[in-house]
Amino acid sequence: MGQESQDYEKAEDGVYNNTRNPNPERVDDEDPNQKRKRGGEEEEEEDFASVEKLFAKQEVPSWTRQLTFRAFIISGMLSVLFSVIVMKLNLTTGIIPSLNVSAGLLGFFFVSTWTKIVTKAGFLTQPFTRQENTVIQTCIVASSGIAFSGGFGSYLFGMSDRIAAQSSDRGDTKNPGLLWIIGFLFVVSFLGLFSVVPLRKIMIIDFKLTYPSGTATAHLINSFHTPEGAKLAKKQVKELGKFFSLSFLWGFFQWFYTAGDSCGFINFPSLGLKAYENTFFFDFSATYVGVGMICPYIVNISVLLGGIISYGLMWPLIWNKRGDWYSEDLSPKSMNGLQAYKVFIAISMILGDGLYNFFKVLGRTLIALYVQLRQKDVNGILPVADQASPATLEQLSYDDQRRTQLFLKDQIPAWFAAAGYVGIAAISIATVPHIFPQLKWYYILVIYLIAPTLAFCNAYGCGLTDWSLASTYGKVAIFTIGAWAGASHGGVIAGLAACGVMMNIVTTASDLTQDFKTGYLTLASPRSMFVSQIIGTAMGCVISPSVFWLFYKAFPDLGNPGSAYAAPFAVVYRNMSILAVEGLDSLPKNCLLLCGVFFAAAILINLIKDCIGKQRARFIPLPMAMAIPFYIGTYFAIDMCIGSLIKFVWEKINKAKADAFVPAVASGMICGDGIWTLPASILALAGVKPPICMRFLSSKDNARVDKFLAG
Amino acid sequence: MGQESQDYEKAEDGVYNNTRNPNPERVDDEDPNQKRKRGGEEEEEEDFASVEKLFAKQEVPSWTRQLTFRAFIISGMLSVLFSVIVMKLNLTTGIIPSLNVSAGLLGFFFVSTWTKIVTKAGFLTQPFTRQENTVIQTCIVASSGIAFSGGFGSYLFGMSDRIAAQSSDRGDTKNPGLLWIIGFLFVVSFLGLFSVVPLRKIMIIDFKLTYPSGTATAHLINSFHTPEGAKLAKKQVKELGKFFSLSFLWGFFQWFYTAGDSCGFINFPSLGLKAYENTFFFDFSATYVGVGMICPYIVNISVLLGGIISYGLMWPLIWNKRGDWYSEDLSPKSMNGLQAYKVFIAISMILGDGLYNFFKVLGRTLIALYVQLRQKDVNGILPVADQASPATLEQLSYDDQRRTQLFLKDQIPAWFAAAGYVGIAAISIATVPHIFPQLKWYYILVIYLIAPTLAFCNAYGCGLTDWSLASTYGKVAIFTIGAWAGASHGGVIAGLAACGVMMNIVTTASDLTQDFKTGYLTLASPRSMFVSQIIGTAMGCVISPSVFWLFYKAFPDLGNPGSAYAAPFAVVYRNMSILAVEGLDSLPKNCLLLCGVFFAAAILINLIKDCIGKQRARFIPLPMAMAIPFYIGTYFAIDMCIGSLIKFVWEKINKAKADAFVPAVASGMICGDGIWTLPASILALAGVKPPICMRFLSSKDNARVDKFLAG
Repeated sequence: MGQESQDYEKAEDGVYNNTRNPNPERVDDEDPNQKRKRGGEEEEEEDFASVEKLFAKQEVPSWTRQLTFRAFIISGMLSVLFSVIVMKLNLTTGIIPSLNVSAGLLGFFFVSTWTKIVTKAGFLTQPFTRQENTVIQTCIVASSGIAFSGGFGSYLFGMSDRIAAQSSDRGDTKNPGLLWIIGFLFVVSFLGLFSVVPLRKIMIIDFKLTYPSGTATAHLINSFHTPEGAKLAKKQVKELGKFFSLSFLWGFFQWFYTAGDSCGFINFPSLGLKAYENTFFFDFSATYVGVGMICPYIVNISVLLGGIISYGLMWPLIWNKRGDWYSEDLSPKSMNGLQAYKVFIAISMILGDGLYNFFKVLGRTLIALYVQLRQKDVNGILPVADQASPATLEQLSYDDQRRTQLFLKDQIPAWFAAAGYVGIAAISIATVPHIFPQLKWYYILVIYLIAPTLAFCNAYGCGLTDWSLASTYGKVAIFTIGAWAGASHGGVIAGLAACGVMMNIVTTASDLTQDFKTGYLTLASPRSMFVSQIIGTAMGCVISPSVFWLFYKAFPDLGNPGSAYAAPFAVVYRNMSILAVEGLDSLPKNCLLLCGVFFAAAILINLIKDCIGKQRARFIPLPMAMAIPFYIGTYFAIDMCIGSLIKFVWEKINKAKADAFVPAVASGMICGDGIWTLPASILALAGVKPPICMRFLSSKDNARVDKFLAG
Repeated sequence: MGQESQDYEKAEDGVYNNTRNPNPERVDDEDPNQKRKRGGEEEEEEDFASVEKLFAKQEVPSWTRQLTFRAFIISGMLSVLFSVIVMKLNLTTGIIPSLNVSAGLLGFFFVSTWTKIVTKAGFLTQPFTRQENTVIQTCIVASSGIAFSGGFGSYLFGMSDRIAAQSSDRGDTKNPGLLWIIGFLFVVSFLGLFSVVPLRKIMIIDFKLTYPSGTATAHLINSFHTPEGAKLAKKQVKELGKFFSLSFLWGFFQWFYTAGDSCGFINFPSLGLKAYENTFFFDFSATYVGVGMICPYIVNISVLLGGIISYGLMWPLIWNKRGDWYSEDLSPKSMNGLQAYKVFIAISMILGDGLYNFFKVLGRTLIALYVQLRQKDVNGILPVADQASPATLEQLSYDDQRRTQLFLKDQIPAWFAAAGYVGIAAISIATVPHIFPQLKWYYILVIYLIAPTLAFCNAYGCGLTDWSLASTYGKVAIFTIGAWAGASHGGVIAGLAACGVMMNIVTTASDLTQDFKTGYLTLASPRSMFVSQIIGTAMGCVISPSVFWLFYKAFPDLGNPGSAYAAPFAVVYRNMSILAVEGLDSLPKNCLLLCGVFFAAAILINLIKDCIGKQRARFIPLPMAMAIPFYIGTYFAIDMCIGSLIKFVWEKINKAKADAFVPAVASGMICGDGIWTLPASILALAGVKPPICMRFLSSKDNARVDKFLAG
């Protein structure tokens, strides 16, 4: 799913920013005096004020000195780590939580360690600054972002034979190839970067947009570089390391018992065999328990609710209708049978939710822009975010002055950005049709003409709401370009490829404006940020396809439904493209009706959520989250709810400790399990089979097997 | 094993007394001032002084008021709980840790709750005193002691057909029957009680013996009845309850996956299939993890070491000698093949260790008695334990005065004890030969003539060293009576039955003198203790056989090697009896040689342990503990070592907390898992089969099973 997930990532980040540790040192409960002393500083503005004064004596290095060799070495290492994790999440369920905290923590940890070791070895070394930390953070985000936007779990893999075999068409296919993917990513990924550069000042200095995720990250980095923050960071890293090791070892241990397809802990029928058949079981995945700990409660509950509605109720009922609604001979996996309901109902919910939010955010964006521009006519440059507190309009605080000054010091000329955009667009228009002959050059030209506007919309909307609509823009591209190309001209591939081109631009636009906000708050130079983004994107264009290739070669059943790496959104994206090209024919009986119902329900739920006020809206589930288990099943929802439960209990016992350590523990679990997939896939490539199968048999089957094995 | 285990219980108790919470309130680390305040009171004497002054204002109820209805109701309930646990331990490995702490805790908890509820309901109720608590404790110990000394895992079950089929003889058998067992226990269990009564004053007032377990229990009960102690006790009960529930639920959860013999977590090859074949695996038993947490480290390490020597090295090597040392056609379970080495080498180590300690304790006993009696001639009644500090000889402390006064207030006349002993002995001599025709009346008469002397020796030795030699006395009975009766007269059964008669007397003697010491220190009346002991023993004579009967009927493979309830010591005891009757014939090649080596090694290790000084002796393994895995395998040793590891890590993190809560957590784990066997056996009796089999197959077998199940 890739892009769907990013929505959650952003949604999550928003919550993260509001409820968790913007100033981790404040939740450290070891010194109650300290806590009392800071008790009054609840206002964000006051807090900011104190931040830059704390750092006032520290000289800000020039932008070239912010870009260090060690920063990129460490960014490279962590990019591999996070690309593996994101790829694994892409290919299993598509739910990807925010890994910013772990990226920040680990970056801080590695550079501090590096600095210490080098200093001890007797070499003089540059001190580790928060600007350098921001550079690392930006580089990792840019690089591992490609693992999302590359579409390895969605549009790109949706072109393959393997996914086509599961969907209802026999249209064109294009199987993954390491080289063409790298080439494709290189020609489309840098465009977003250049489209953002001119918007930078408008969004951050003029409009003063919030960018909750970017702000949270900046707070984190700032706090790390105060003595207290470094102490807490060290403790958090220790927790992260502990759970990293445990989770890695657990993954290793599990491996020994997976000699066959139905073996191992991932097939543990912990709620009984009947529930297991309907995908209700705990699959002992440290990753998804960790994901559940990071995601807001409502996401986890939505996922579980979706699982109960689909696998608990609807699919068993629809399965009973076989022979009536669809042919009895079809396997449950056939796209003309039960599978069609699963895929298309999920698509309708995702589309319903996506469209609603698209129009909502677009509306808010346009209104806010209108207000902004009118105000600008009256007052000149004024911060929109501060409308509520007109007192601050008159003067900039010390922090804002210093930040603005440094942000505007190192300029990136607009002509440079424009030339870069046009140049890369030209290369892209010339080369992409060679990769996808179905995607004519004029489709790409049209996309590139509209793209900057959409990139602006997405960056602005994300700054306001922390909600990136990249996947929705991608879907729009699928439907428009797919329909334009038509079936006879290979519209399916054209639609998917167009989705890729569009998504890469809009994702990068919103992500990198976030980064600029982070840089603004940590006094990092826009130039060093830009260079870091370019290097990070280049890294990502190589690392992500390589990681995908490793998975693709190591796990031959990648993409098959029911396997460990089902890549659920590949099928969903392909089917959307088919829908665009072929219309709604060949769906089984009542499928279209059900799709309509769920499409409407998704919109209705969103409407209700927006109408009843924030307090009660917290209890309304998210249709997008509910749609995921419709296709892939409920097991990961149970993992995530266990994560929620752990967090809930921990918060009940000690709220301050939980706030400080839940993200670290969860990140450790996710990273450890994620990184285990590296040796696991190497073992698989080397043909090393696990020695034991832990198998679950019904009492009756077991008696038969006993007899069989005895002789 | 029953009696072997009691050795550990006592050994454990000794360590328990020395290193754990004699005054639990002292290890509560919540109030550092309190801790500092008490810091100087390290001397036992001073501590005692403060205890009775603390209670000075509290009136001691008359002995009849110490015996309350509620006390016996609660004792009955807890007796069932502890009998189930002890029985399970008897029938699995025979290692039984001290459950005194849990008995004390739970007794306190239930009566406090009872008192509170009744008071709240508006009824006036007698306050809960420490004397009543002691009565409950005594009753439970007396009752659940029968689950040991009844020999359900050793001599009694060793008489059955099922065990005879596994041993080398075709001698007489006697299968368990609920009624004859109850009858047998009633006629032999009360004798020890009466033999102890006249010794009471000599042991406790005159000789002032330590009785570490009894003293520890008294400290515990005293501490509970101070306000602080009650607070800690409540916390401990909470922990106990938590782990009780978890462990119960874990047992319940495991049950679902045990549809067949080789299914479930108890067959989890956590160290690989090869290690599993040699019994090296973690079997997820909460009980033995708990046992490992209570037992001293050296016991757990000894057991593991024994497992490595036997199943890791010797048995695989001896198995390779098949066809040379013994016939190749024999199954590994045959008593003429590999099994013979397992059983007889284990027996030799147990005998070597037992004999060494027998002579050691006997020697110490005789020397101490000699010194005592000589001193008595000189000074009158003088405490032997205080020889080291002659200053206290001159006067009794406040505590001692008060305790002695109350202990001597309620006398039990000697004529009553003597008449009771003779009466019951007469009944016993008349009835036991009807149960075991092989055990002639004159054998019993001889035993009863010698028994009071041995009972005195055991009670005295136990008071000095905390080490009960009951099982060794039992083995002496097997060898003497077995040899006397001879094969033609059914000597096997005669030996086993004689063992039972002897063990019941000497066990009761040492246990109940411990109880009197507890009563002395808590100001409980000897009369109320005696009544409680009689009631407890009577309960035990009914409860223990009933519990055994439940296990026997519910688990049809009870006693079969390799099953969940292997009752390992039943075979060991039967084979000892066969050895006594038939000599050393029919052993396979080199078996006798190996037995000799290990017999000598057991004595040698003990000798070394006694020679090198206490500090280094801690690191010398215990031969008796090493012998257990020789017969039943290593898996429980791994459980116990994990328990050790948990305790070790906990102590590293927070010693004070660990000291206060390890016994509670461990007891919770043992009790929860133990009590789960009740519903489990009821389910088994009702014919309810678990629905799922969790099975472990090699990669190769799994491929075959896959094919088989597919068609």
